Amino acid sequence: MSDAPSVPPSTDRTGRHGPTIRDVARIAGVSIGTASKALNSNGRLRQETRDKVTAVAREIGYRPNDMAQSLHRTRSMTVGVLSTDSFGRFTLPIFQALEEQFADRGIAIFMCNATDDPERERQHLDQLLGKRIDGLVVTARRADKRPPVGPLPPGLPVVYVYSQADDGDALSLLADEDGGARLAVKHLADIGCSRIAHVTGPEHFEAVQQRKRGYYAALAEAGLAEHPGYYRAGLWSEAWGREATELLFAGDAPPDGIFCGNDQIARGVVDALRERGISVPGQVAVVGFDNWEVMTTAARPPLTSVDMNLSALGHEAGRLLIDMIGGEKVRGIRRLPCTLVVRQSTSRQG
Amino acid sequence: MSDAPSVPPSTDRTGRHGPTIRDVARIAGVSIGTASKALNSNGRLRQETRDKVTAVAREIGYRPNDMAQSLHRTRSMTVGVLSTDSFGRFTLPIFQALEEQFADRGIAIFMCNATDDPERERQHLDQLLGKRIDGLVVTARRADKRPPVGPLPPGLPVVYVYSQADDGDALSLLADEDGGARLAVKHLADIGCSRIAHVTGPEHFEAVQQRKRGYYAALAEAGLAEHPGYYRAGLWSEAWGREATELLFAGDAPPDGIFCGNDQIARGVVDALRERGISVPGQVAVVGFDNWEVMTTAARPPLTSVDMNLSALGHEAGRLLIDMIGGEKVRGIRRLPCTLVVRQSTSRQG
Repeated sequence: MSDAPSVPPSTDRTGRHGPTIRDVARIAGVSIGTASKALNSNGRLRQETRDKVTAVAREIGYRPNDMAQSLHRTRSMTVGVLSTDSFGRFTLPIFQALEEQFADRGIAIFMCNATDDPERERQHLDQLLGKRIDGLVVTARRADKRPPVGPLPPGLPVVYVYSQADDGDALSLLADEDGGARLAVKHLADIGCSRIAHVTGPEHFEAVQQRKRGYYAALAEAGLAEHPGYYRAGLWSEAWGREATELLFAGDAPPDGIFCGNDQIARGVVDALRERGISVPGQVAVVGFDNWEVMTTAARPPLTSVDMNLSALGHEAGRLLIDMIGGEKVRGIRRLPCTLVVRQSTSRQG
Repeated sequence: MSDAPSVPPSTDRTGRHGPTIRDVARIAGVSIGTASKALNSNGRLRQETRDKVTAVAREIGYRPNDMAQSLHRTRSMTVGVLSTDSFGRFTLPIFQALEEQFADRGIAIFMCNATDDPERERQHLDQLLGKRIDGLVVTARRADKRPPVGPLPPGLPVVYVYSQADDGDALSLLADEDGGARLAVKHLADIGCSRIAHVTGPEHFEAVQQRKRGYYAALAEAGLAEHPGYYRAGLWSEAWGREATELLFAGDAPPDGIFCGNDQIARGVVDALRERGISVPGQVAVVGFDNWEVMTTAARPPLTSVDMNLSALGHEAGRLLIDMIGGEKVRGIRRLPCTLVVRQSTSRQG
């Protein structure tokens, strides 16, 4: 490109011609050649000059005739992270990972929180779009499906993390919770359990459905029978873990392995077993889900648990958003693998 | 001010004259009168027009002759929140509150996390300053003293929340942890405890020092004797709570009330008491600190606990930062009151 590119006349709402490279140069206090170099990211210039020219061009809405280059030039080097729920235990590791990804590339993060309030979400989106973010990450407390955020300007890259957009064109990154459940059940079978129960949270959670599917699939793979009383859906609490243990041990075929839908349930289960004089893992082995250290390490014994690797999910989301900002098209639902962290509740050596 | 204010010639680094209100008007696609109205925040204009003009003026560096007004006009409507630690249980409620305060005023938040890494913190600060933030909130996992962030441009408003700058000119907002400890101990004394122990975390924490001070002051106020074996500093864990209980009950003068430095310690204490067959609150009443619901409601019995009202702290920090951006001078250390949340560990009715 020459130092003085020809700029096609464009028209704004008022019918006037749009700004030219001459405007950019004059306002930025540089020559037209320098402005052009700065906007084409070539030539030797001080970073300060380049930044100044880019900022002026962006703000006055200067658009050269190469659309792709224009997109590049108008980057704000900011992204939005919209949590559709209070920031909590699940969004934190994701946010931390995103922050690392973006900070390394000089991209700043606008953070907002809509607490499941569509009106608030709309306000936040308006604000983010007003700041001309280059991309958007939407995250949530639950991996359940949600309506896509919007309306958004066409082409704005969006990644849903631990959150699923009800939109085939969206990109959603999720943990493979079905696979995580299989890891847990296979592990219990591998250490010799043959009567494996599943105590989990409320059935309307997508996570509960996924983990239940994995539980039954892994039982079948291990050649173990399903037992009608072994599947217990309830709440995400320790109290439910204790209560479910009473129910499981009231019958004549108590389990020898219990896969729990989260670590709080698992903690309730090991407490109830201890208080019944049943040894863990000697008589019953127990696996939790989430690998939430506050729970897994304080439980007696410490809990083997499935880790959803939310941090890896956040890193991948950051990488993909950066690729999308760079022009790549990415869509669909991607599920990243879980891992099993073995502790004493399934292993005397652990 | 007239519709066409006179603009004094200014010079930039290159010696050329700076942008004029005519430039602002032309680039924004409005009349000079409209541009002036928008920049003086007077007259009837659509918010969109006002925003557009303000954005253009800011970006091209237009400065009228009234410096105070100029400051007003050059606001970026963004603030930075710098966590000097991983975002966690303590920073979250603060962040949530800040977010509410700022979102209501159309101020967007740049969020960054320095994880106690000075190099990272410096990078983040550079980035935030490059984005021309109007103010900065610094928050941390611990309320301990830290070196002031910086260097910062003179006059940039900064509020430290749940974090204390080692700088007399800074504004730091903290919870009154000494007062919180007094509430706990007074409550135990009020329900009839006369042998009150304090099981707490590591002594090098400022929080441990503050709470210890409150513990001894409240004992004195209640006319209760200090007992050399009743103060036990250790770790912030359930395991330490259980271990400390064994130590307290090994002697010949076991306590009848235990004030714990956090809820995890308190949970360990009530577990150990239950397992020794000691009833809570019948024989020993127990109070925690933090009012972390995950712990307080899952404990058996649920825990009475001191709440640091971190959310109120965040709201106050947001309000003060907005005042400071508006030109108010605020400095010093402010400690906001804690409250006591009573549950069954100190009350059979709770």
